[in-house]
Amino acid sequence: MAGNSIGELFRVTTFGESHGRGLGAVIDGCPSGVSISEEDFVFEMERRRPGTRPFDTQREEPDRVEILSGVFEGKTTGAPLALRIANQDVDSSPYEILRTLYRPGHADFSYEKKYGHVDFRGGGRSSARETTARVAAGVVARKILEADGIDIKGFTTALGGVYASKIDRRAAESNAFFCPDPGALEGMERALQRARGDGDSIGGIVEVRVSGCPAGLGEPVFAKLDADLAGALMSVGAVKGVEVGAGFEVAGRRGSENNDPITPDGFSSNNAGGILGGVSNGDEIILRAAVKPIPSIAREQKTVDRQGRPASLKLTGRYDTCAIPRILPVLEAMVAIVLADHLLRSRSARFRQG
Amino acid sequence: MAGNSIGELFRVTTFGESHGRGLGAVIDGCPSGVSISEEDFVFEMERRRPGTRPFDTQREEPDRVEILSGVFEGKTTGAPLALRIANQDVDSSPYEILRTLYRPGHADFSYEKKYGHVDFRGGGRSSARETTARVAAGVVARKILEADGIDIKGFTTALGGVYASKIDRRAAESNAFFCPDPGALEGMERALQRARGDGDSIGGIVEVRVSGCPAGLGEPVFAKLDADLAGALMSVGAVKGVEVGAGFEVAGRRGSENNDPITPDGFSSNNAGGILGGVSNGDEIILRAAVKPIPSIAREQKTVDRQGRPASLKLTGRYDTCAIPRILPVLEAMVAIVLADHLLRSRSARFRQG
Amino acid sequence: MAGNSIGELFRVTTFGESHGRGLGAVIDGCPSGVSISEEDFVFEMERRRPGTRPFDTQREEPDRVEILSGVFEGKTTGAPLALRIANQDVDSSPYEILRTLYRPGHADFSYEKKYGHVDFRGGGRSSARETTARVAAGVVARKILEADGIDIKGFTTALGGVYASKIDRRAAESNAFFCPDPGALEGMERALQRARGDGDSIGGIVEVRVSGCPAGLGEPVFAKLDADLAGALMSVGAVKGVEVGAGFEVAGRRGSENNDPITPDGFSSNNAGGILGGVSNGDEIILRAAVKPIPSIAREQKTVDRQGRPASLKLTGRYDTCAIPRILPVLEAMVAIVLADHLLRSRSARFRQG
Amino acid sequence: MAGNSIGELFRVTTFGESHGRGLGAVIDGCPSGVSISEEDFVFEMERRRPGTRPFDTQREEPDRVEILSGVFEGKTTGAPLALRIANQDVDSSPYEILRTLYRPGHADFSYEKKYGHVDFRGGGRSSARETTARVAAGVVARKILEADGIDIKGFTTALGGVYASKIDRRAAESNAFFCPDPGALEGMERALQRARGDGDSIGGIVEVRVSGCPAGLGEPVFAKLDADLAGALMSVGAVKGVEVGAGFEVAGRRGSENNDPITPDGFSSNNAGGILGGVSNGDEIILRAAVKPIPSIAREQKTVDRQGRPASLKLTGRYDTCAIPRILPVLEAMVAIVLADHLLRSRSARFRQG
Repeated sequence: MAGNSIGELFRVTTFGESHGRGLGAVIDGCPSGVSISEEDFVFEMERRRPGTRPFDTQREEPDRVEILSGVFEGKTTGAPLALRIANQDVDSSPYEILRTLYRPGHADFSYEKKYGHVDFRGGGRSSARETTARVAAGVVARKILEADGIDIKGFTTALGGVYASKIDRRAAESNAFFCPDPGALEGMERALQRARGDGDSIGGIVEVRVSGCPAGLGEPVFAKLDADLAGALMSVGAVKGVEVGAGFEVAGRRGSENNDPITPDGFSSNNAGGILGGVSNGDEIILRAAVKPIPSIAREQKTVDRQGRPASLKLTGRYDTCAIPRILPVLEAMVAIVLADHLLRSRSARFRQG
Repeated sequence: MAGNSIGELFRVTTFGESHGRGLGAVIDGCPSGVSISEEDFVFEMERRRPGTRPFDTQREEPDRVEILSGVFEGKTTGAPLALRIANQDVDSSPYEILRTLYRPGHADFSYEKKYGHVDFRGGGRSSARETTARVAAGVVARKILEADGIDIKGFTTALGGVYASKIDRRAAESNAFFCPDPGALEGMERALQRARGDGDSIGGIVEVRVSGCPAGLGEPVFAKLDADLAGALMSVGAVKGVEVGAGFEVAGRRGSENNDPITPDGFSSNNAGGILGGVSNGDEIILRAAVKPIPSIAREQKTVDRQGRPASLKLTGRYDTCAIPRILPVLEAMVAIVLADHLLRSRSARFRQG
Repeated sequence: MAGNSIGELFRVTTFGESHGRGLGAVIDGCPSGVSISEEDFVFEMERRRPGTRPFDTQREEPDRVEILSGVFEGKTTGAPLALRIANQDVDSSPYEILRTLYRPGHADFSYEKKYGHVDFRGGGRSSARETTARVAAGVVARKILEADGIDIKGFTTALGGVYASKIDRRAAESNAFFCPDPGALEGMERALQRARGDGDSIGGIVEVRVSGCPAGLGEPVFAKLDADLAGALMSVGAVKGVEVGAGFEVAGRRGSENNDPITPDGFSSNNAGGILGGVSNGDEIILRAAVKPIPSIAREQKTVDRQGRPASLKLTGRYDTCAIPRILPVLEAMVAIVLADHLLRSRSARFRQG
Repeated sequence: MAGNSIGELFRVTTFGESHGRGLGAVIDGCPSGVSISEEDFVFEMERRRPGTRPFDTQREEPDRVEILSGVFEGKTTGAPLALRIANQDVDSSPYEILRTLYRPGHADFSYEKKYGHVDFRGGGRSSARETTARVAAGVVARKILEADGIDIKGFTTALGGVYASKIDRRAAESNAFFCPDPGALEGMERALQRARGDGDSIGGIVEVRVSGCPAGLGEPVFAKLDADLAGALMSVGAVKGVEVGAGFEVAGRRGSENNDPITPDGFSSNNAGGILGGVSNGDEIILRAAVKPIPSIAREQKTVDRQGRPASLKLTGRYDTCAIPRILPVLEAMVAIVLADHLLRSRSARFRQG
């Protein structure tokens, strides 16, 4: 059944596979009058692109976003915005082995059980490359949010077991991992290099912060802002956990510590992470996503073939050692898409004329 | 905007407020032929009900579910199933203070900003009492799942900073918290009593496990099974974090540890939590939800009134010390609703006649 | 699958059966701040109610609408509005025959094929009584529309083969059929009396006109205003055809006749029926619905039993001779629901801050 | 707001403008395992294409459908199917006049009021060229329906005021209008030639018949099969009326004539048009759509400019004289899309294991 759309008023539908003709997104419900050009996508697509940072896959993919429809003379018209990113000609032959074997930690097994007929080349629809379409859609969402002063920033707060212990925004700007704690950076880099040397991969945590979000976004009780954000972040391949504000820390807290006192100048703490009762409260929104180690590793793994017979698999080819930092713009994009949708939705909250 | 429905094929819409006439759910898309009676709801409603366990609110609310429509001669007809739980006459006068003051940690402030006009009595729509409708809908969802041998069970794996270190299902049956580790139980109880004595509250973690779930449930890429489950769990009031399988543990792991090897007898570990690429893989589904301490506490708190002037608030009345264990049937119900929906959705995954 | 909801932002879900406990509607997405009381429903419910006019079923059903949730101190709160209409105790025994026989022209046969298990009492879910919930929801929709000066009125333009040839609004107010042509009224009444005497029933046409609708409502290309209105009207049991503006007349027209010239004072004709390209143009919206004769007649009809054996059926009991005029408030309600939804949707059409 | 998707399980989203880069459709929810190739689209695209029949626009547009995603080794994978039809380089300069003037009978005026910023070239999003994407999606829908023996055929039953009086399927195959009445064909052709000579256009009626549709499709009460079909047909630009079965004829009928008697061999008439209570009854589905004369005519028309000043407009360029017969494959495609969706939806109607 249809599961490739997200959002109600700002509705994004993505398509495409890793080694097919390309990927894309259709954004339905983007208001008319938003200025947008193909150049606007370059920065975010570069952030997500492999090969632009050390430790990344070396494959060269320019990932240019082409606007197929919905923009006229530099501005959206209210018609669906179709965005397309062509795939470069890539060699699918290394993936022929997947015609018979399932990769542990990948969707190969579950997709096979579900669909029977699967495009296995490069992971097909389940590839991380699918997220290019999300990033592209996120660029449009941000245009809408920026007009209201809403800003979204991701930080690497853990990598390979090394945890950041503070959020220094300026520090984050100066390193490839957007690590907000200069004291943790070196440990993170070492963890990554060690894993790489071992043909292995590592996981981490990304924290996404939203500043400038007005109070009143989120639709109780099932489309609460935190519920929609959690679902959106969890829909990104490598994510295995999502937190809002104090997150799992609340398990060891008392109400008197965890409640955020309200003062004439605002909340005096932010354990809520900017969301109360599923509705934004005007404070900074704080989200965290647990990112699992990339399952494609250059080490021998036990698996079975499509007939269920035991087999062993050792992937060659160039893989990232960690989904971080390439996953940062993806997570930011998902947050942007959800917020743009809820910003539009919030306009119907109160009765008024016109 | 409309946010009170969840699910696509098995679609649940809830309504009602804490101190209004009652609560209810309309289930649209329940197949015809499901045997159901009003007695079927009693067990789960009792589990959620206050006053049935030590430490709980002492208020007496029978919470009988009335079937208003959709059932004829003991079986569903395919027409919408409307369920209703009447509110007993309760005294709203203790809540008059909320006409002027916001409770820290509650939805009062954000609802006011969003809607302007709010039913504050007992928290109104944002009250935990809203979850009675979810539990009722979950009972119907379970009926569909049971036919396929799918079973859902929640456990308290942390309470007041005390963590369970094993899952002993038999042990869980024998205590009021469904704590699966007898060694942790006493500590949990002590934490709860201490907080209660202090007029304070505590948080915890609930783990929900699903056995018998077939491979193939979940719709990539935005309605992945884990994404929908995460959203559904996060939509429950007190939840501030959600994990699948290894969850936030992955941040410190390597791919070689975290990948679950595949053998002819199944997966030899379950870090994935039963979901790969957003699709169930046939293994046990493992979810965890972080439950914040109940924000209603009998201690003085700083807040503001609706004019923004500083104020102090000390709640009297009887409140639970922890949302656990009453939240367990609610979380189980949310999992059941999502799985029933995806079970029906999975029937359109492959091309076939008829 | 779920089919009992209509609308995206103003979303109405109905439930209930003819001889069950009652009927109802949940309206999700009604903005906060709309003044509404149970008295507000009386007028429209009376218009739809049987026994209030000559020729109607004589059964006495007060059809009082009870507001179960979503209203506090006389105004909506943004929470779902649940409305309920209880069924009076009615005798279902005359319907026992339907346990074995299908009524021609009714849903009995197709429901049986679809669901296997059907509540046949009084037609169950397929009964015209289901429309009480639509009328109730329409009352709330009208509240939103009225604030913008949008008015909806239905007229009987054909009955039993007698056609009105003009729209005299004042004349329509003065007769039970809302027939806008005094010259046609007598013929209509005669046709109805004759059919009634014969134990037969008659069909007709209802024209619904919307004045005060602003330009800009409707969402190309599948949720065009005329598309949504056509679907909504066709969803009413007896309706077999829907027209907008010139309707089927266009088949014999030329473009030069059918195009509405535009002048500085507006359109100089209204063949478009107030909708161009699926978007309202500010002119009066003109819709027509063909209403089939009520299939329940006191004449012997050929049918089969549930085993497919030939049978004959002669319905006793009291039935209306025509769905008109009771269907008028139902059709108006459907138009109101669609317009309220599109009025809210139209607020996201253009980019703006906030 | 998002209005460019149709269907719930088989969900089609279209994009593109007349003079932009191209048009396309994303089909989400197409089951895996459907055989499809780019050649499969050629026949239907040719039927819709201008210049392939006398009286049509002479512009040459091959309209080749490119499959961008969702198909692997000749079969669908369950991933979204993205289809694209490139626009040939066309001269938009004749449309410069629309920068200032509204065309009567077109969406120019209402789009301007709604969106403020409109792509006027060739009608932009509101152009009939948008329907290429619908036809392409319909080809995929038909693949699903064909497996169950469901066949959809459109006929021209009225053109320029000349009405067919019988349905001779063989006769329809042998003429360019799919006119099923050889006796009416000459009159239709004459009407068309006369209008063409006058620089004018004509309207007509298309009847669509569906054979082989099983009983049980359609979801009461708002997603009834006739309601969804009516909405889908009305969403096609030129359509101003929709009928099911006897349609507007019912206004002059009695119940005893209009009810279809049921016999052991099926229904002995088909006034219902194959749908009872919104659910297919296994009989042939009969639909009719009123098609207005093309508003683009080579005659002078009164209009206003964007400042509201009176103006006169005479369109040059080559336009069709009638939307028929090119609209036939479009209407068939809409019926196919709705039926494919409901075929998948019908699989959840009854409770069963697995």
